[in-house]
Amino acid sequence: MKFWGSRFAKGTDALADKFSFSIAYDYKLALYDVMGSIAHVTMLGQCGIISQPEAKKIANGLSQIGTKIEKGTFKFDPKEEDIHSNIQAELKKLVGASADKLHTARSRNDLIVLDMKLYCLYELTLIVDKIAKVQKAIVQFAAKNIDVIIPAYTHLQSAQVVLLAHHMLAYVEMLERDKGRLFDALNRMDTMPLGSCALSGTTLPIKREMVAEQLGFPQATQNSIDSVSDRDFIIEALADLAILGMHFSRMAEDMIIWSTQEFNFVNIDWSLCTGSSIMPHKKNPDIMELVRGETATLYANLNKLLILTKALPLTYNRDLQLDKPALFESVEKVGDILGLFAILFDTLKVNKAEVAKRIINESFFTVDIMDYLIKKGVSYRDAHDVVGKMVKECLDHGKKIADLSKADLKKYSVKFEDDVKKLLNPESSVKNKKSFGSTNPDLVKKQINKWKKLLNV
Amino acid sequence: MKFWGSRFAKGTDALADKFSFSIAYDYKLALYDVMGSIAHVTMLGQCGIISQPEAKKIANGLSQIGTKIEKGTFKFDPKEEDIHSNIQAELKKLVGASADKLHTARSRNDLIVLDMKLYCLYELTLIVDKIAKVQKAIVQFAAKNIDVIIPAYTHLQSAQVVLLAHHMLAYVEMLERDKGRLFDALNRMDTMPLGSCALSGTTLPIKREMVAEQLGFPQATQNSIDSVSDRDFIIEALADLAILGMHFSRMAEDMIIWSTQEFNFVNIDWSLCTGSSIMPHKKNPDIMELVRGETATLYANLNKLLILTKALPLTYNRDLQLDKPALFESVEKVGDILGLFAILFDTLKVNKAEVAKRIINESFFTVDIMDYLIKKGVSYRDAHDVVGKMVKECLDHGKKIADLSKADLKKYSVKFEDDVKKLLNPESSVKNKKSFGSTNPDLVKKQINKWKKLLNV
Amino acid sequence: MKFWGSRFAKGTDALADKFSFSIAYDYKLALYDVMGSIAHVTMLGQCGIISQPEAKKIANGLSQIGTKIEKGTFKFDPKEEDIHSNIQAELKKLVGASADKLHTARSRNDLIVLDMKLYCLYELTLIVDKIAKVQKAIVQFAAKNIDVIIPAYTHLQSAQVVLLAHHMLAYVEMLERDKGRLFDALNRMDTMPLGSCALSGTTLPIKREMVAEQLGFPQATQNSIDSVSDRDFIIEALADLAILGMHFSRMAEDMIIWSTQEFNFVNIDWSLCTGSSIMPHKKNPDIMELVRGETATLYANLNKLLILTKALPLTYNRDLQLDKPALFESVEKVGDILGLFAILFDTLKVNKAEVAKRIINESFFTVDIMDYLIKKGVSYRDAHDVVGKMVKECLDHGKKIADLSKADLKKYSVKFEDDVKKLLNPESSVKNKKSFGSTNPDLVKKQINKWKKLLNV
Amino acid sequence: MKFWGSRFAKGTDALADKFSFSIAYDYKLALYDVMGSIAHVTMLGQCGIISQPEAKKIANGLSQIGTKIEKGTFKFDPKEEDIHSNIQAELKKLVGASADKLHTARSRNDLIVLDMKLYCLYELTLIVDKIAKVQKAIVQFAAKNIDVIIPAYTHLQSAQVVLLAHHMLAYVEMLERDKGRLFDALNRMDTMPLGSCALSGTTLPIKREMVAEQLGFPQATQNSIDSVSDRDFIIEALADLAILGMHFSRMAEDMIIWSTQEFNFVNIDWSLCTGSSIMPHKKNPDIMELVRGETATLYANLNKLLILTKALPLTYNRDLQLDKPALFESVEKVGDILGLFAILFDTLKVNKAEVAKRIINESFFTVDIMDYLIKKGVSYRDAHDVVGKMVKECLDHGKKIADLSKADLKKYSVKFEDDVKKLLNPESSVKNKKSFGSTNPDLVKKQINKWKKLLNV
Repeated sequence: MKFWGSRFAKGTDALADKFSFSIAYDYKLALYDVMGSIAHVTMLGQCGIISQPEAKKIANGLSQIGTKIEKGTFKFDPKEEDIHSNIQAELKKLVGASADKLHTARSRNDLIVLDMKLYCLYELTLIVDKIAKVQKAIVQFAAKNIDVIIPAYTHLQSAQVVLLAHHMLAYVEMLERDKGRLFDALNRMDTMPLGSCALSGTTLPIKREMVAEQLGFPQATQNSIDSVSDRDFIIEALADLAILGMHFSRMAEDMIIWSTQEFNFVNIDWSLCTGSSIMPHKKNPDIMELVRGETATLYANLNKLLILTKALPLTYNRDLQLDKPALFESVEKVGDILGLFAILFDTLKVNKAEVAKRIINESFFTVDIMDYLIKKGVSYRDAHDVVGKMVKECLDHGKKIADLSKADLKKYSVKFEDDVKKLLNPESSVKNKKSFGSTNPDLVKKQINKWKKLLNV
Repeated sequence: MKFWGSRFAKGTDALADKFSFSIAYDYKLALYDVMGSIAHVTMLGQCGIISQPEAKKIANGLSQIGTKIEKGTFKFDPKEEDIHSNIQAELKKLVGASADKLHTARSRNDLIVLDMKLYCLYELTLIVDKIAKVQKAIVQFAAKNIDVIIPAYTHLQSAQVVLLAHHMLAYVEMLERDKGRLFDALNRMDTMPLGSCALSGTTLPIKREMVAEQLGFPQATQNSIDSVSDRDFIIEALADLAILGMHFSRMAEDMIIWSTQEFNFVNIDWSLCTGSSIMPHKKNPDIMELVRGETATLYANLNKLLILTKALPLTYNRDLQLDKPALFESVEKVGDILGLFAILFDTLKVNKAEVAKRIINESFFTVDIMDYLIKKGVSYRDAHDVVGKMVKECLDHGKKIADLSKADLKKYSVKFEDDVKKLLNPESSVKNKKSFGSTNPDLVKKQINKWKKLLNV
Repeated sequence: MKFWGSRFAKGTDALADKFSFSIAYDYKLALYDVMGSIAHVTMLGQCGIISQPEAKKIANGLSQIGTKIEKGTFKFDPKEEDIHSNIQAELKKLVGASADKLHTARSRNDLIVLDMKLYCLYELTLIVDKIAKVQKAIVQFAAKNIDVIIPAYTHLQSAQVVLLAHHMLAYVEMLERDKGRLFDALNRMDTMPLGSCALSGTTLPIKREMVAEQLGFPQATQNSIDSVSDRDFIIEALADLAILGMHFSRMAEDMIIWSTQEFNFVNIDWSLCTGSSIMPHKKNPDIMELVRGETATLYANLNKLLILTKALPLTYNRDLQLDKPALFESVEKVGDILGLFAILFDTLKVNKAEVAKRIINESFFTVDIMDYLIKKGVSYRDAHDVVGKMVKECLDHGKKIADLSKADLKKYSVKFEDDVKKLLNPESSVKNKKSFGSTNPDLVKKQINKWKKLLNV
Repeated sequence: MKFWGSRFAKGTDALADKFSFSIAYDYKLALYDVMGSIAHVTMLGQCGIISQPEAKKIANGLSQIGTKIEKGTFKFDPKEEDIHSNIQAELKKLVGASADKLHTARSRNDLIVLDMKLYCLYELTLIVDKIAKVQKAIVQFAAKNIDVIIPAYTHLQSAQVVLLAHHMLAYVEMLERDKGRLFDALNRMDTMPLGSCALSGTTLPIKREMVAEQLGFPQATQNSIDSVSDRDFIIEALADLAILGMHFSRMAEDMIIWSTQEFNFVNIDWSLCTGSSIMPHKKNPDIMELVRGETATLYANLNKLLILTKALPLTYNRDLQLDKPALFESVEKVGDILGLFAILFDTLKVNKAEVAKRIINESFFTVDIMDYLIKKGVSYRDAHDVVGKMVKECLDHGKKIADLSKADLKKYSVKFEDDVKKLLNPESSVKNKKSFGSTNPDLVKKQINKWKKLLNV
């Protein structure tokens, strides 16, 4: 059944139907559509717009449909253009002519916004929970490997040494911001649009606050035109998911690099790798690569929605229908990514022996040597020059700083004493860090404990 | 069956499988995969790498699979990770152990590029044909309405009058460039990658030019590393389709505006419109809006592929798997759009009476008046000032230029004679245009004839 | 001067300098860089890392530089690679060798994040204020035109009538969400990164909370690796500005359409329009078109930053330098757009007579007629059919509903009485709306008053 | 001076001017604007639309302006809105009232398209030349290092060994396609738009083919509406540059990875690296990172233009002005990138000793062992299993295949003989490759020679 057509001279073209029907994806809104309709019809009954018994009859029909949907036994008819008409058609079978009263004092314009908001409120809350699970897995991985020191990089060139746990907690910080953004988005979208009808409201004596209350919204939307035109909540969600995706793409890149034969810091579990059809020795970090790749999907979906809504005159335009596949895909991909990263950190193995070999290079400690000089009153600039020169000459002549005699050291700066050599090892380097937020092991342990408390680990 | 795994300590996680399996979309490559494999195995036989009878046996098995696929009776198994393993598994059922020799001297890395190229070569050629059909429909629509003059716009402000047919031929020009771009892309991608294997070629005595010839490629690719890393041909196709989409979004926008109650130039056929669930009088140009909206999809898919391939180290990385849903969606959406626009122009009705009312405003002819003065030796700048002043004063006092006396006219410029008033009608305005490419009716008719010949209308 | 180079065998190539120097745009950070450095050096003095007198000397030098920058008399040297080295070089001229101590216990990696955060905190707060100004201008425009009824559109097809003021308040809602998003972003970014140094913190006894307090940050960042890697705050800001731009593009589109000759609802002030070099009668809504166009810029900048940061391994990579031109451009464009829309609504004229002509069509009232029947117990579905049929037949035979006799009406539904004709005018249509958020004049006036209070109009 | 304004009631707002003036960037079109105008005015004279002496006077004035522009002495006035009005104002100073005749039979709508096409034709041709220079540098680098064998990667996991030269020629292939795309774009845009005027052509007796001929265009555009609406040529160029940028981002990524301490294949010359403000030992591949980063700029510019033109109704809309900064930036960035990569390959050093250490792992030769078995009649599938099992057991027990006894080998497959061990070295691995396009040294040398000839190395 179509919600329109009584004045139409002829039907739509089959290709037009194929191009415009949304049931292939908006069936995912089925339960939300039913929930919203039950609240709506209950209100219609309570306001006397339809009789209470008829309202109950319709609500019962909708409940039966809801149960079927939950059980997965509801058959979506691809010949009905959208989820609303699918449910309407089924309802008619169940409750007869009463079904024709459901679509009173509402329009598909406001109904679809309600469905999409309910979807977002539910799904994004799930995602927040899953982020917390990944954070837990990271914190536990960090705690388990609290003694591991790794090279850290800027420009992918080895820079200084840090605790692996410190690196991990950077990920936790990133994810904490993702949760914050999603919370803010959830709060902002939490207004109930139904009853805005096509765009102007209705002459029927509805009570929108009743629907809001039943569905758990703190309030109804305040402007009917904005209600049916607004897709901010979807775009904001997609932006939050895109940034989250960026974070996971960075973690994935770290993992891909760390698991090369050349770096060899970690072993990603077999359960997240695949092999080669031609090279039997290969173990490839496919899941990490696909996470990196799907980030492009998350970006594209955000971009698509922004482009879609650009320069659309108010109020509703059919272009807006295309918000759905983009949102659904991003929500589902992010759900998968979060599940996969929980597995990743639960199963990740550190190649401690290999990592230990990689942190003995003196270059990692040049900043510590500079700080040594600065503490003795040398300016940053002079200290930089002294250490730079020392490094260059050692490299040029294949020497080590640790092997320089006191006299050699003094040639670079009279401030040098033999005790500078105590700085030339990774354990000292991390321990000597003192500043808040640094890689100092005591501070990192405090951070771990803070996170454990916050995350109920 | 998996193409790998013999050295794997344990299997992949179920969620990892869900996230990484591509059979849900790459089943669309089934026929191309079979075609490529038949050519490959035939070559293997001819080169003596496997025996001729075994080659024929495998080729026969593949043919049977191909027939099933064409008939739509082939069952794709969602538990096989991709199209290659689906076909491999079926082949094994048909020809037994011989099937295990198919994947000789090739890898999934080169095979997937072959499949994707065959897909593009076939599908993009179809698109070129469909573009030509839309061009034909436009030319016929233009010819049928050769006498209709419409307002033309810059900045959506009415500017000058033109033949509707002239406006239509602008669309034809746009589409001609789309065809050109696709032809160029088709030519550029026409090299055969199979036999590049994982990335380095093979020690087996294959003859890649034989496979190329069988499949209709003029040559084989020249560098095995590039062969498996290259996705240019997909990105170029997506760029061409994005530009094509932009063109249709502009046409769609013209149609949406022209079919408002306020403009009312055209009636889009009922078969391409839908109604409202709440406002029974509505007839909405949904298909045009969805075309405008899907342009965002076409852009997003291009953008996705560019992002996906950015900064990927050579050679193959698993991220590349995600090229497929993007390409398939763009190809299918464009196919639909082309079909819909052929219907649009076949059925579009011009509201001649309404249009005629809208082209009588004297403002449309100001440039003609300027040209009148310029022909009499007035500089462009002075002519612009004279006409600007005249227009302003007429508007301010609610007068018409046609009603000005000769004396009034002379106050603006002594060059004015009464004959300037002959310019103040739409028919003269288009007829007086003389320049090549202009809206002059004779020139427009010549253009129509040219296109009819080129397009075999 | 360069901050590095002591171990370099030779200098950088001139083209490499051109490609990598950022002073051409990061000079915009000058004041923030100075502010941050004064706080930093004051802390260094208080912590005894450098002597108090030397700290004061440096701070004084920085103050002098700050004054010059504010006055616009500071000369940025294009041969110094970035804003940090520009200020460092000038400081050396002012305070001699002491300048060499400024860059103690910090790195450019943390410094640039501090500068960018200070920039964002200041500039985004300004933008929030400017949004409020536009909201005020809209509310005042709405209040001034409270009596004007306009056609409202779905699918750009005329749908129902609404108060112009109601349409305007939809804009105010959109902008309120923009402010909310920016507030959330400002809160989230409000942590102080300096002292994270290159990536691991420092061995020097700094107190980061002192710097935070001086600069007005509630706290210091908690993880040094995250501090130098994080660009979330920029991307979130760009996402917020992109959505804001989308809003203005929709308003701009409304204005462009409303100011066509065909719609003719409003006159955009001359101060926001331009003319044609060839058509003297033209008055084009260029500023609205450019706002629509710059939305693409805002989208592109968001997209650029997301792409830039995708798959970057932690920690700092030089790619991140390119965050600046994107952010600065978006901030500046949005500032301009906000200024222009304040002017727009301050000067916009409604063509009341023209608008009045456009709202008399009976099609605007079909939903009101449906509601009439529903109130009498007819189901939504039957009401839709009845009214659809009535509309179709009236259109087909060139009749008006208002001219139908009671008997004619009864043929469509026995529920019809003559009083249904009272619904067929725009004033009744808006007045009869009752639902919260609807276009009912009393409710709209309440909304205006609410906004006036909130915005201090 | 403005080209319009005679009917304007008041001037534009200062902020509107700031927002809309394009002279800050379109000054880059100055020479093209002058060239086009000289051709145009010459035609006007030859057609008798203005007198020949006046045409020559104007052309002379324009020539003088052109000379100034070339010398860099032309002063662009920021108070003139665009490049056209800047030149017009200067021309008036030079030739007086005659200047007012220049803008006859044209509009800014067609003029700006001409300028942009001339810009593209010139600049893109330069880019093609620069690409060839990079190709030469790569080929020479390949030839110089023809004896170097490196690990090749899929999924960034070491896969097989290849000639470094073979990897380099993959880059050359990529760049060859870039040239092809640009050639196609250049051909497609090569039509002359001037004389299309505002949108409809002109009543003046101009000869557009004369202007085309003078400026070197093979023909004039055929539809005036399309001429002023079309921005395909810019978008196509931006798409080509985006793909090119993607290529360089992949090369840059290879270089960044290859120059880590862990891979250590190459040394990027100091001239393309920078150091750290805090870590004196660092040598960072900044230029490579910035190339990777600017790829995002190239993508964003393409995306911006697509978004800008989406759903714009024909004909000209002011949004189109914003095509210029995007195009100019992409052209300039690509020019720089090409210059930098020529330097890169001219100066890149291979760490031959380090690379040699990395190619001795037996895992590189597993495919060669599989081919060995296949040549003896083993199926691909069985060979894969055999080798996979052998690799796994060797890895598990810390053994080498080379150390397996013949008996041990036979346990995996009876087909194994001792000669299989001859395959276990990198030199054999590349030499044994036979297929066209493979890494076989003889074939690679042939490819180098082919490229040398094509590129005139």
